[in-house]
Amino acid sequence: MNYRFAGRMGRVPASFLEELFRVSGIPGVISFAGGLPASAFIDVEGIREAACEVFDEMGQKALQYTTTDGYLPLREFIADRYRRRLDLPATPEEIQIVNGSQQCLDIVAKIFLDPGDAVGMERPGYLGAIEAFSLYEPDFYSVPLEEDGPDIAAFESLIHDHAPKFFYGIPNSQNPSGRTYSQEKRRAVAEILEGTDTVFYEDDAFGELFFDGKPRLPVKRYLPDQTVISGSFSKTVAPGMRIGWIYAPEPVLREFNVAKQAADLHSNFLSQVILHRYLSTHDLDAHVARVSAVYGEHCRLVCDLLDDLMPPGVTHTTPEGGMFMTATLPDGVSAMELFREGVREGVAVLPGVPFYVDGGGEDTIRLNFSAAGEEEIVEGIHRLARVVRRLAA
Amino acid sequence: MNYRFAGRMGRVPASFLEELFRVSGIPGVISFAGGLPASAFIDVEGIREAACEVFDEMGQKALQYTTTDGYLPLREFIADRYRRRLDLPATPEEIQIVNGSQQCLDIVAKIFLDPGDAVGMERPGYLGAIEAFSLYEPDFYSVPLEEDGPDIAAFESLIHDHAPKFFYGIPNSQNPSGRTYSQEKRRAVAEILEGTDTVFYEDDAFGELFFDGKPRLPVKRYLPDQTVISGSFSKTVAPGMRIGWIYAPEPVLREFNVAKQAADLHSNFLSQVILHRYLSTHDLDAHVARVSAVYGEHCRLVCDLLDDLMPPGVTHTTPEGGMFMTATLPDGVSAMELFREGVREGVAVLPGVPFYVDGGGEDTIRLNFSAAGEEEIVEGIHRLARVVRRLAA
Repeated sequence: MNYRFAGRMGRVPASFLEELFRVSGIPGVISFAGGLPASAFIDVEGIREAACEVFDEMGQKALQYTTTDGYLPLREFIADRYRRRLDLPATPEEIQIVNGSQQCLDIVAKIFLDPGDAVGMERPGYLGAIEAFSLYEPDFYSVPLEEDGPDIAAFESLIHDHAPKFFYGIPNSQNPSGRTYSQEKRRAVAEILEGTDTVFYEDDAFGELFFDGKPRLPVKRYLPDQTVISGSFSKTVAPGMRIGWIYAPEPVLREFNVAKQAADLHSNFLSQVILHRYLSTHDLDAHVARVSAVYGEHCRLVCDLLDDLMPPGVTHTTPEGGMFMTATLPDGVSAMELFREGVREGVAVLPGVPFYVDGGGEDTIRLNFSAAGEEEIVEGIHRLARVVRRLAA
Repeated sequence: MNYRFAGRMGRVPASFLEELFRVSGIPGVISFAGGLPASAFIDVEGIREAACEVFDEMGQKALQYTTTDGYLPLREFIADRYRRRLDLPATPEEIQIVNGSQQCLDIVAKIFLDPGDAVGMERPGYLGAIEAFSLYEPDFYSVPLEEDGPDIAAFESLIHDHAPKFFYGIPNSQNPSGRTYSQEKRRAVAEILEGTDTVFYEDDAFGELFFDGKPRLPVKRYLPDQTVISGSFSKTVAPGMRIGWIYAPEPVLREFNVAKQAADLHSNFLSQVILHRYLSTHDLDAHVARVSAVYGEHCRLVCDLLDDLMPPGVTHTTPEGGMFMTATLPDGVSAMELFREGVREGVAVLPGVPFYVDGGGEDTIRLNFSAAGEEEIVEGIHRLARVVRRLAA
């Protein structure tokens, strides 16, 4: 038969991830290409204890259907943390639990985008967002992401010329670049958006992972009714539970809830209650501080090795937090070629092209520094440098 | 600010579920309005054991990111069960794990429907499907659901006149009616669809719950490359884990996988591995047989009580399985009025209107018979009959 798929399916960029997963699984390949948090920091024993307590105390209730918005005590925990860490006046009623913050990308796009609507993004921008938004057939407009945040003149032109339904950004340790908006640029972004009908979609997957342990004030502080924030426990507790959230003004959350209910009724309730129990009995601040410190060491190690070993013409970002950085290759060296040759040499990196929604990035790569250990990092960057030097010659 | 939501958000029927949840939570109200499986059959002890084994044996792996398609051993279990129970030649490669089979409704609609495309459904049809599909702005066409399946002449006209992208049906113990397609009608549906480009979307949430314990052969048996089946562990093991699946031909599954990845990367992995462990160490057949037998007793009890207590003019369906039935009210009695008056009398039912995508159903109600115990059923139907008699007088 002739399967008549929807037009939107033709809009999704060809995914590189399948090849990536295949490659990352080849024994002996050191991978900087993925995006896994360090397995060593997943507290299996603590989560096991929390699970046992939940089964013993809640019984069948932990395994039944629940409401779409999510487990109230977990939403209270999240709201309280916003109040405490970021001085945001969050209430549990403004929080909705989702299946990892990737689901926010899908649902925010669903509630806002008609085909042909404008969406603003950073350049480079998060690949997973490009994939999710593409299915709603918007027109993408991007703004260069500089060392300290978006190019403000370009941002202002984009907002005024195209009036996007929303601008999607990752102000804290962006994926892929690792860059963080300065407070000045956060304020500038908010000032430009104020009085327009463009929502700021603030993806905060990495805000807990600053190496110096200090939180940065979100754009939402300057633009409360116009900003939606998404957050996640995937990078701080465990990705496999798929628990993230959205924190949004009430009119947005109401539509979000309708779409979430239609999408899957509610998120995994068992994981919600286990996670809440874990968070109530363990010190997340201390845990996150340990994780961030180690990621910081890994990041500095990668930066130092790149500086020492790479041929002239290689530059890289210098993240203050998160799990990723980008590097730019010497003239004439293509990231795709580096990917293919790297795998033969036993090292995998992610070519930057899929992060450029309107083209470009052929000479950029993304490097993850959370998954590999120190010895692997040293050996992996040595391998990578050998390949880059060969290709540049 | 002016939130500029997408046009699709105006297409969702106003949800009745919030009021329902509120009402169902009022102490003293006996509810036939919800859709919960019996909590008593959720094997907390068994799932607890499985969880502990998973934490001890898999460690961090059970809590990391995984691939979009889902945990292979769980997909093997599902495929094997199709081969054994229904003689369908399923392979794990044709199975994809989702967040409860509700997510299939969203994703199948997403991959097939452009605005204005035709979708076929039963009348009455599943409310959750109407909500999910509506967000993709199709034109709905419905076919009367008779005691033994769809009105075949109307089905044939619908397929030929409107060439829907897919026809969505629940051949086994449909929600809301409890009706089951006869084998003749399954064959007739398949014959009409064969050679067309209309997919049959066979929602099989209840196929394990026939009171006589005998499986019915799915439409997919007669139309393998043109049928997608969705299934769920929510009604057989536990809803709170949100684990369902789709079983679809490879070209459909490929697009489904792209949309699933964009939607939330992958389903809760911890629940997938716990569930698989539970299924490997417990006898699902025996469990399902026990659940079905009790649901059968509850169903017969409700039917008998309706026959004995209701005034003339009340009719009801007589399910062979599942969790739901519908009743039709006497002339002049409205289901909305019954809902409101019922709550005052301490009994809640679900008005049928939201199950009628093109209008009607004002004199119908859906009754759930899985959640309440026998004593509650007896008392609840007595209360309901009192209200109906009063309204009919």
